[in-house]
Amino acid sequence: MRIAVLGGDGYCGWATALYLSNRGYSVAIVDNFIRRQWDHEVGAETLTPIRPLSERLRTWRQLTGKVIDVFVGDVMDYDFLSATVKEFRPEAVVHFAEQRAAPYSMIDRKHAVFTQVNNVVGTLNVLFALREFAPDCHLVKLGTMGEYGTPNIDIEEGYITIEHNGRKDVLPYPKQPGSFYHLSKVHDSHNIMFTCKIWGLRATDLNQGVVYGTVTDEVALDEALINRFDYDEVFGTVLNRFCVQAAIGMPLTVYGKGGQTRGFLDIRDTVRCIEIACLNPAAKGEFRVFNQFTEQFSVLDLARMVEAAGKKLKLKVEIDHIPDPRVEAEEHYYNAKHSKLIQLGLQPHLLSDSLLDSLMNIALRYRERVDTSMMMPKVNWRQARNDRQMETGKPAEVVASETALETVGTVSGGNGNRRSRAAGKPELAYSKR
Amino acid sequence: MRIAVLGGDGYCGWATALYLSNRGYSVAIVDNFIRRQWDHEVGAETLTPIRPLSERLRTWRQLTGKVIDVFVGDVMDYDFLSATVKEFRPEAVVHFAEQRAAPYSMIDRKHAVFTQVNNVVGTLNVLFALREFAPDCHLVKLGTMGEYGTPNIDIEEGYITIEHNGRKDVLPYPKQPGSFYHLSKVHDSHNIMFTCKIWGLRATDLNQGVVYGTVTDEVALDEALINRFDYDEVFGTVLNRFCVQAAIGMPLTVYGKGGQTRGFLDIRDTVRCIEIACLNPAAKGEFRVFNQFTEQFSVLDLARMVEAAGKKLKLKVEIDHIPDPRVEAEEHYYNAKHSKLIQLGLQPHLLSDSLLDSLMNIALRYRERVDTSMMMPKVNWRQARNDRQMETGKPAEVVASETALETVGTVSGGNGNRRSRAAGKPELAYSKR
Repeated sequence: MRIAVLGGDGYCGWATALYLSNRGYSVAIVDNFIRRQWDHEVGAETLTPIRPLSERLRTWRQLTGKVIDVFVGDVMDYDFLSATVKEFRPEAVVHFAEQRAAPYSMIDRKHAVFTQVNNVVGTLNVLFALREFAPDCHLVKLGTMGEYGTPNIDIEEGYITIEHNGRKDVLPYPKQPGSFYHLSKVHDSHNIMFTCKIWGLRATDLNQGVVYGTVTDEVALDEALINRFDYDEVFGTVLNRFCVQAAIGMPLTVYGKGGQTRGFLDIRDTVRCIEIACLNPAAKGEFRVFNQFTEQFSVLDLARMVEAAGKKLKLKVEIDHIPDPRVEAEEHYYNAKHSKLIQLGLQPHLLSDSLLDSLMNIALRYRERVDTSMMMPKVNWRQARNDRQMETGKPAEVVASETALETVGTVSGGNGNRRSRAAGKPELAYSKR
Repeated sequence: MRIAVLGGDGYCGWATALYLSNRGYSVAIVDNFIRRQWDHEVGAETLTPIRPLSERLRTWRQLTGKVIDVFVGDVMDYDFLSATVKEFRPEAVVHFAEQRAAPYSMIDRKHAVFTQVNNVVGTLNVLFALREFAPDCHLVKLGTMGEYGTPNIDIEEGYITIEHNGRKDVLPYPKQPGSFYHLSKVHDSHNIMFTCKIWGLRATDLNQGVVYGTVTDEVALDEALINRFDYDEVFGTVLNRFCVQAAIGMPLTVYGKGGQTRGFLDIRDTVRCIEIACLNPAAKGEFRVFNQFTEQFSVLDLARMVEAAGKKLKLKVEIDHIPDPRVEAEEHYYNAKHSKLIQLGLQPHLLSDSLLDSLMNIALRYRERVDTSMMMPKVNWRQARNDRQMETGKPAEVVASETALETVGTVSGGNGNRRSRAAGKPELAYSKR
């Protein structure tokens, strides 16, 4: 099967492209490297030193003999995208090529508008390109569990049967997204559903939970294949951040009460879910929704698990509750269904002590690359403008707590060449707030 | 109360601006005249000869002594929009400033993308401008009944109480919009709901039905104040088209079976609904939804009503069923609630024989301006590209039926200066298909 991975240089995309290539599919990566550009913009770096795509793919070919095609361009550019579809003739398109960070979308108006236009128009372009040049191709689109929000009833997979005033219908599950980014995914879902109806496209919307883990079998083959490990306040995810904080002796920063409950999954399950979706395509005209996660945790659950894992490594781990920069329920009912991928053969890698140990070890291994200034939230949902550049000039409002650090040895102050360093003050300083 | 009417040069916007001005509110029109530009693009003209806004407002001032402020610019331009908000300091913003034609959004990819970007970003700009410069201002946003689609259960006003697996919640009513335009309104609704939550904005989403009628008390004061009467296949609405078709002896073109049922309202009710919303603002942080229509009709119901009205005027009216260019249910359950505006004081003008007579008389009065080539649908939902320019070079695929025309006398072949006339063939020709 010929599978195009849009956004194949990103975190999930890279792991997916390698996995599918390894499994014998004919894979093309379509990417414009804007994810790397966003790192420069926000002043963050993945903890793990990822290599340029050209080097990654050269190594992959040397190790496995397998070739992954590359099309460099932006899905916002319809001429490029349609030419790519015509040339590669995909049987499945896996679409990761979106701005995927909620805090990035909440920085200010320009970032909100960029996120929605980039994601919505990129996806419209994909839909039109498939309609015009590959009408039988299966679109596997990455959505997010965040489309549903936190309703007080069970979350179903995309649709819900509603009985009302003596009548009944199966309707799209109501959406209550919590950021301009999550909203963009809701917009996408509605657009895709519509084009399946009018054009007979076939699409699977994978409402994915929060992904953790860096190592897949393929990535583990060589340091040059290493995947991203984002822990910064904009692109980082919570479990990564907690592991990094534990590794450097910084208190784990729980937003508010920490009762925010979400679906999570191991990146090894992400790549398998994508394969399962490709192997079992949606019918012509079908808009199918799978909830792609394996376990639910609250933020505080995760903090306590990292605390326990840290203790095994003789790290002193504290948990801090800081004001929630997001507008969200800090305690709520949450029960989201996720059986469709299991029914199609997914065997989950549940979050185990050993996986947590592995994450902690990655954090420890690369701890000299940690930039402590990147972990405190600077994007507040309540503000229309969050001026991150101004704030990075100051250390976080915190005081040193050297003793905690000593348990894991010296920690570098970051990569040292960023604007925020201009003040000449060490930014390791922090304390409980 | 200071009320800004975004899109105040358009059909609903113009009637609203005059009505509010007449009722003593301080009104500003914000418009960039793109609606007039779209007429040029699609080669259509309103049946009624509308005047430039400057002339309209000069006449209004001469007749009533009332001044309506004008801010000329695009809500897509945030600098312009925010400066306007700062200068005018509105207490309510009535937002009509969107691309509002489903067929226009379905022409091709560029029109789909334009419609969604224009509407979504324009509304995001309004939300940010209010958050930054008028956080207590009430946003009165025009949505559409088309956001709901045609579910097999009763349609509620914005929200529905769902009992599921022994739990209950009030959730946003599921949306199944039927065009890229209608989708843009769904995107807007989600975006607005979110900003009410995070920023405490106050907003009313008016899910309006199909509006008919041209004459309001204010518009009737002078020919220079005349409002639009769109009957073309792109921007026209069904009742207008039927009246024009009846007036010139052309068969009424019902799409498919004609069982498509929608909510309708008189433009005199539109303007009153806007006033009611302004007088009863949403609470801080509230996202309120009203279904703004007064009666439900199927397309075939309307055709039969126009047929009857035509007969009274001694017109020979036939009804043709042509293939539905849209992808939609041609027969379906439809029962949409619309009690909230009634509870707040709306006294509906129901569609009566006298109103139909009045519409027919407008169609007859201006029948020499009718362009018969504009009424057959040329935008097909099933196609990714609808090349209207190519098609306007040909007469519709039809044969003359002069006898029907004779009943209403001579009918001009249109305005005579459009590209489609280049073929030199009379375009009055048509027949039943």
